[in-house]
Amino acid sequence: MIILGIDPGSRKAGFGLLNVQGRKVSYIHSDTIHFDIKKEFNERVPEFFNSVKEIVSRFHPEHVVLESLIYVKSPTALIKLAQARGAMLAALHQCGYAGKLFEYSPNLIKSQTTGHGHSDKLAGQKFLDTILGPREYKTDDESDALLIAMCHAFQHNNPINTRSTRSGSLAQSVAHKI
Amino acid sequence: MIILGIDPGSRKAGFGLLNVQGRKVSYIHSDTIHFDIKKEFNERVPEFFNSVKEIVSRFHPEHVVLESLIYVKSPTALIKLAQARGAMLAALHQCGYAGKLFEYSPNLIKSQTTGHGHSDKLAGQKFLDTILGPREYKTDDESDALLIAMCHAFQHNNPINTRSTRSGSLAQSVAHKI
Repeated sequence: MIILGIDPGSRKAGFGLLNVQGRKVSYIHSDTIHFDIKKEFNERVPEFFNSVKEIVSRFHPEHVVLESLIYVKSPTALIKLAQARGAMLAALHQCGYAGKLFEYSPNLIKSQTTGHGHSDKLAGQKFLDTILGPREYKTDDESDALLIAMCHAFQHNNPINTRSTRSGSLAQSVAHKI
Repeated sequence: MIILGIDPGSRKAGFGLLNVQGRKVSYIHSDTIHFDIKKEFNERVPEFFNSVKEIVSRFHPEHVVLESLIYVKSPTALIKLAQARGAMLAALHQCGYAGKLFEYSPNLIKSQTTGHGHSDKLAGQKFLDTILGPREYKTDDESDALLIAMCHAFQHNNPINTRSTRSGSLAQSVAHKI
């Protein structure tokens, strides 16, 4: 099963694709798309749309996963982020993705991967290196997108742990299979 | 020139279309689209997208206008509204609208139409009745969409007044032409 994790933004967005076969997880692709910030926000909307359209048309993910949107930074930042996210969700449907959209809270994603709900970016990247092998990521958005996809892989294999915040053992279990 | 005003929302959206020829403004069409609130938010995204796609494909507006998004109600409501708005903006581009997107603040829209930046819904509807003739609107979103389009008609005819908050005279001037 191909899982696409998306970390949306109005200046750039991260995409991470994993292949999950039973309890085996492997890396397919990840990327950071930088939007043209010389353009006004509204003029960037087609770029948000097309970034998702292109990646979905190329990899045909069976499950698409995002971090649930919570109040962050400022109302202005939130408004831009949420609009970019809306344009990306619209693209999912328009390019034929008929699956359900999965969402997990930032804390659950962290706890399911690094084992700690308040872990930092470095811990996330170390976790990815352990599971998927060492790799350079252009941005934190790109590694975050893989962590989002990874969280879903764990949830998919062991949904009973959805509400758990101490599930480092699951991550270890997957690591042993790689 | 055909102007489309949009009042987006995640439960329903208002659309208002005006024809502006010089200083003459006339009503073309207005509608309220109710989205299926039995569905989860993410499942409604194609409805947001299609509502705009259908109206733009049908009326081919030359200018599209929205109220600028400001912080309202709660973060949760704002996140949903902004995402719905993002999906609608994406639809504009995808259905071939190549024009600029115009935005005005809620206060400017009110002051440009009713002459008072903090006027209520009733004042807005009375203003529309005066300018466009009496008409029943299904929702406030629908009449708000017409007020948004009307604000742009005034700005388009008299852009020097963009920052004015006392421009009731312009509205009167248009009224006399109808």
